[in-house]
Amino acid sequence: MPKQAIDGQGNARMKQGDHALSGELTGEGHRLVQRVYYEDTDFSGLVYHARYLHFLERGRTDYLRCLGVAQSALLSADDEGLVFVVHRMEIDFKSPARMDDILAIATSTEKAGGAKMVLTQEIRRGEQLLIQARVIIAVVNASGRPRRLPEGLAAKFKR
Amino acid sequence: MPKQAIDGQGNARMKQGDHALSGELTGEGHRLVQRVYYEDTDFSGLVYHARYLHFLERGRTDYLRCLGVAQSALLSADDEGLVFVVHRMEIDFKSPARMDDILAIATSTEKAGGAKMVLTQEIRRGEQLLIQARVIIAVVNASGRPRRLPEGLAAKFKR
Amino acid sequence: MPKQAIDGQGNARMKQGDHALSGELTGEGHRLVQRVYYEDTDFSGLVYHARYLHFLERGRTDYLRCLGVAQSALLSADDEGLVFVVHRMEIDFKSPARMDDILAIATSTEKAGGAKMVLTQEIRRGEQLLIQARVIIAVVNASGRPRRLPEGLAAKFKR
Amino acid sequence: MPKQAIDGQGNARMKQGDHALSGELTGEGHRLVQRVYYEDTDFSGLVYHARYLHFLERGRTDYLRCLGVAQSALLSADDEGLVFVVHRMEIDFKSPARMDDILAIATSTEKAGGAKMVLTQEIRRGEQLLIQARVIIAVVNASGRPRRLPEGLAAKFKR
Repeated sequence: MPKQAIDGQGNARMKQGDHALSGELTGEGHRLVQRVYYEDTDFSGLVYHARYLHFLERGRTDYLRCLGVAQSALLSADDEGLVFVVHRMEIDFKSPARMDDILAIATSTEKAGGAKMVLTQEIRRGEQLLIQARVIIAVVNASGRPRRLPEGLAAKFKR
Repeated sequence: MPKQAIDGQGNARMKQGDHALSGELTGEGHRLVQRVYYEDTDFSGLVYHARYLHFLERGRTDYLRCLGVAQSALLSADDEGLVFVVHRMEIDFKSPARMDDILAIATSTEKAGGAKMVLTQEIRRGEQLLIQARVIIAVVNASGRPRRLPEGLAAKFKR
Repeated sequence: MPKQAIDGQGNARMKQGDHALSGELTGEGHRLVQRVYYEDTDFSGLVYHARYLHFLERGRTDYLRCLGVAQSALLSADDEGLVFVVHRMEIDFKSPARMDDILAIATSTEKAGGAKMVLTQEIRRGEQLLIQARVIIAVVNASGRPRRLPEGLAAKFKR
Repeated sequence: MPKQAIDGQGNARMKQGDHALSGELTGEGHRLVQRVYYEDTDFSGLVYHARYLHFLERGRTDYLRCLGVAQSALLSADDEGLVFVVHRMEIDFKSPARMDDILAIATSTEKAGGAKMVLTQEIRRGEQLLIQARVIIAVVNASGRPRRLPEGLAAKFKR
């Protein structure tokens, strides 16, 4: 039961809380729920446009976390090391979010292979689509040079 | 049921999520659990000092939410209107947080009455105390002048 | 003496300081110089990707300022009101910025007319191109509906 | 010509621009001028309270820069290394800043010696005092243990 995860009591709670806090894997990829706070808004009364990239990044980070991919471990995983670097973003701002809104960030893998990953992400408030994004990620080694994504890792994103 | 509210499938799940999202009232006040993401860190490898104020503000906002005090409603609650304004903060940075840490933000009321509120807040990682803060809040009306906190509202903070 | 520009005394100073602070119009559009501070970096040691959108937005805001277009005035300029809303961004992250870097943000108008504007923006460190962005902006009225950009205003962007 | 300072051409420009960008040393310490942008505001229409800490930190960073103290160099300056860590802040929020405001951040040394530094900082808009802060900074070595501030360095802050 997800609620237990954050709201329960005793030691069990903390562990479960960790999990709920990180969202959950879905049929299409990953889903994370986040709240809009003061810090996310600007004087227009709406969410500051760059803040949506924070919500998207939290989604990507927790997607990896739920896949069991520790980014810090990847760096020293094999001889080369492996780092994900955002190479390009295309973002459509469909409709604005406001203070106190509850947002669901959905992340799914469009492509994972070679030296490249493509993720598609959406932010919704209830059913309404607010943000649509396409994120092109370069797979590089510890020295910043392009490298291949290992098969085992690529497979995780395609599940 | 709040959880229903947000989490779509297994309608039940969503409601619980909503509730968990805003933390919970405790014997001493309020407790909120939050994750440290990339955005919170700086090149020192630790959390950027001003980001702790974001975590503290999320705690205060959700404390009010859990008390059933809608800040937007307050503004038009009576003839004068009522707004909370941070007047002074004293913050002790005891120990640093790091990427991926899970933080618990505890908020409690030291004083609520007259035209002033004093909240004490703590941020902990597990048992370890990272941040201790004292927040002096002025109670003002819609025109920014000091006004008294209504008895009914003051009582909520003292429960 | 450059220092006078920002640090001098008397009325002249403030005006000049103000002007320098807002960058300047160039043959192609506008150019603004900004410093990278702690707040802009993350624990990777580089600038956090969403922060580039802050630098780009500062550039757009000061471009309008240097064109003499007060955004607050636009809202009540004619019967309808006029607001600029970011509709889509395409951002290429070419090379990373680091703590203490001095960045030049260049903004130019690709299209201004109808209910739409397209701006192209670049961030460089010295000669090196770090960020390239294309920003599609919707022109809407006070109620958020598409409206035409007045000829006089469109002409300013095309100079 | 002030504009030259930031916008001129040739090598001279970059150096002068760099200098102006970093504020200047004054009789009392250091002074930096900064603009309020969209990113600094929240939906209340005023500057988000935690953003003042960003302005203060920019002031401290450029104070060190103008004193010729490279923080990165300090880390490897002697056998121990030297790092400045914010230990406590007391901040009085006197009056709010708004979008487009030009702010002057003044930093001066109250105490520099032993394993501790105390800085006092103010943010003003024109003559009006908006923010007053007292920042207690611990001087630690590369392993995070308290160490003495070298005499030569302490003397720089007392000039």
